[in-house]
Amino acid sequence: MKNFSFKLVKNDHEARLGLISTPHGKIETPVFMPVGTLGSVKTASPDEVAELGAQIILANNYHLYLRPGVDIIAKAGGIHRFISWERPILTDSGGFQVFSLGRGNKNDRSLVKINEKGVEFRSHLDGSTHRFTPENVIRMQEKIGADIIMCLDECAPHDSDYNYARDAMERTHNWAIKCLTEHKKNERKSDQGLYQAIFGIIQGVIYDDLRIQSARFISEQDFDGIAIGGLSVGESKDEMHHILESIEPLLPKDKPRYLMGVGSPEDLLAGVERGIDMFDCVLATRIARNGTVWTRKGKLNLNNAAFSADFQPIEKKCCCYACQNFSRAYVAHLLRGREILGIRLTTLHNLHFIMRLMDEIRESIREDRFTDYKKDFLHDFLK
Amino acid sequence: MKNFSFKLVKNDHEARLGLISTPHGKIETPVFMPVGTLGSVKTASPDEVAELGAQIILANNYHLYLRPGVDIIAKAGGIHRFISWERPILTDSGGFQVFSLGRGNKNDRSLVKINEKGVEFRSHLDGSTHRFTPENVIRMQEKIGADIIMCLDECAPHDSDYNYARDAMERTHNWAIKCLTEHKKNERKSDQGLYQAIFGIIQGVIYDDLRIQSARFISEQDFDGIAIGGLSVGESKDEMHHILESIEPLLPKDKPRYLMGVGSPEDLLAGVERGIDMFDCVLATRIARNGTVWTRKGKLNLNNAAFSADFQPIEKKCCCYACQNFSRAYVAHLLRGREILGIRLTTLHNLHFIMRLMDEIRESIREDRFTDYKKDFLHDFLK
Repeated sequence: MKNFSFKLVKNDHEARLGLISTPHGKIETPVFMPVGTLGSVKTASPDEVAELGAQIILANNYHLYLRPGVDIIAKAGGIHRFISWERPILTDSGGFQVFSLGRGNKNDRSLVKINEKGVEFRSHLDGSTHRFTPENVIRMQEKIGADIIMCLDECAPHDSDYNYARDAMERTHNWAIKCLTEHKKNERKSDQGLYQAIFGIIQGVIYDDLRIQSARFISEQDFDGIAIGGLSVGESKDEMHHILESIEPLLPKDKPRYLMGVGSPEDLLAGVERGIDMFDCVLATRIARNGTVWTRKGKLNLNNAAFSADFQPIEKKCCCYACQNFSRAYVAHLLRGREILGIRLTTLHNLHFIMRLMDEIRESIREDRFTDYKKDFLHDFLK
Repeated sequence: MKNFSFKLVKNDHEARLGLISTPHGKIETPVFMPVGTLGSVKTASPDEVAELGAQIILANNYHLYLRPGVDIIAKAGGIHRFISWERPILTDSGGFQVFSLGRGNKNDRSLVKINEKGVEFRSHLDGSTHRFTPENVIRMQEKIGADIIMCLDECAPHDSDYNYARDAMERTHNWAIKCLTEHKKNERKSDQGLYQAIFGIIQGVIYDDLRIQSARFISEQDFDGIAIGGLSVGESKDEMHHILESIEPLLPKDKPRYLMGVGSPEDLLAGVERGIDMFDCVLATRIARNGTVWTRKGKLNLNNAAFSADFQPIEKKCCCYACQNFSRAYVAHLLRGREILGIRLTTLHNLHFIMRLMDEIRESIREDRFTDYKKDFLHDFLK
């Protein structure tokens, strides 16, 4: 039985309110997915992530394949059991990570060899050689057993020339078909016997005509959802917005749309405004580990000396565990002392901030006032 | 009003069941105090530490004085408010930490200068020079505002010769008197207006006659409790046991007895057997961060390859959060990936292990079967 569906509840201009159903429960969209690359949202326990209101989390096939290995996860009874998370999970194929390996300090592409059949790469852990193909990343993700899996794609650099961008897009399209074919062999089930949705990925760097061509191609295939890759990787905000606007009319209304790797508060709002339903990003948790927290009035770096005698909570009226129990001074003290509780608290706060933002976004769409909500939020946040 | 008391509930041979009352609540003894050096039990939140059943935690004057500074804590309204922990807290004076500075790789004593008036030392953080005296460590601890504070003592190395051990003991005795005198000036209150209990510390390295002399001296003073310092610092188990047995008959029955820095399961049992009521130790949390967990059948290092496909919990029948939700394979995966959740889970498990051990110790004393309990526990644990 195909127990995956997307229902478009309503529009407010281009912004969409929707509902995704998966074998592990429903997801109200627009949704932000916290990232648990290795199977844990960094510093947080699954109980805490659920408590924050996360409806779905993301894990990464590249990292899980290398460690602990997809067979270990299959033996554990699948990713949900392995990491003790009962709600939906999405796995990225790992294509993005593999292609990022080729962009080290010296743009050393020797680490990654691409051809039509797939990509060969060296593990960032021990330098060993591995190969990802459209077919094997699907098999790996079936073993892992997430609710939503992704095609192998080539995320070309934002400054790729037109010809390279076109070649990478065409490879991505060919791989998309191969992924779908492979996925159908197993009747679209994970090795744990549950239906897995599969999303195709639109590429094309910053070239309008490529993005439009890619949007058309991916939309025509029998995918459960449509992802947009290769954005927020160095291009300007205007370029990103323009691309999203160019392709929006071409995307099927009845499938969820996932903007990959995007997640600053302003980018979430910009994405929702342009019809996006799903987002993921490490930003909230990464800046937290650096001592940076988001508030309605912009961001603060708690390492600044001024906070060492500031006995207010990180944010007044915030009801996260950090703000309900601790002062900026204490969190700053923990950060300076490299106490793990410090980065746990900033992480919880930032994720709570994003979850609350998404709640409010959905509420504003429901009430046909998303545009005003966005304006008001950014007025305070960016001032 | 002196709202600190100790009630000896009953003996089972030398083992004691007791009840300490403090301004922040009661403590059933024998008790293990998790260590929160900088004001946080490493990796854990105060909610988690309370949930584990910790009745009291320990913080350190040396570390808090250097960072964030005792005035910051006083401004925050005291340590309980600063760290969001409503139960009792004990602060060590920091003497042990200062004297440890003099014992680096090269036994370089130039970092620490001792005379009768106090000790001058360099911060381990920035090399700046500071001075601890019996008087100022009491004032600092009054600002911090713990329920129980400690005298400044000199913890001489376990291999000190007799003459040095005697000199250090005599200094410790002189400082004990000065600490008591200073403490009485403020009517034994913290700067937050609550009664603070003060404990004296017995020293004397491994020399019987010095330990006996020190036990008599400290017991004669008007302290609220008696601590035994300078053990578990390199001497043999037999030496530690012998000293505890030598001084036990000299200690007042009506005051709590605190064996400082001791906390392996076997040492906790050995201490309780010899009449000790209170313990603290970083061992449980330190080995956890190294991937080592305690079980009833001894310890396991989860970094060993065998655990990467072991889908049992760390310990069967354990009801800690780690064991209720995760497999050894997952925890091992997190540890290998340096995911913070990994060391959070091993820390929670080890603290839970010790808390359960102390619960069972108290229960066995109540039922006059401590000796059998100890024997049974060690039979499984050390085999």
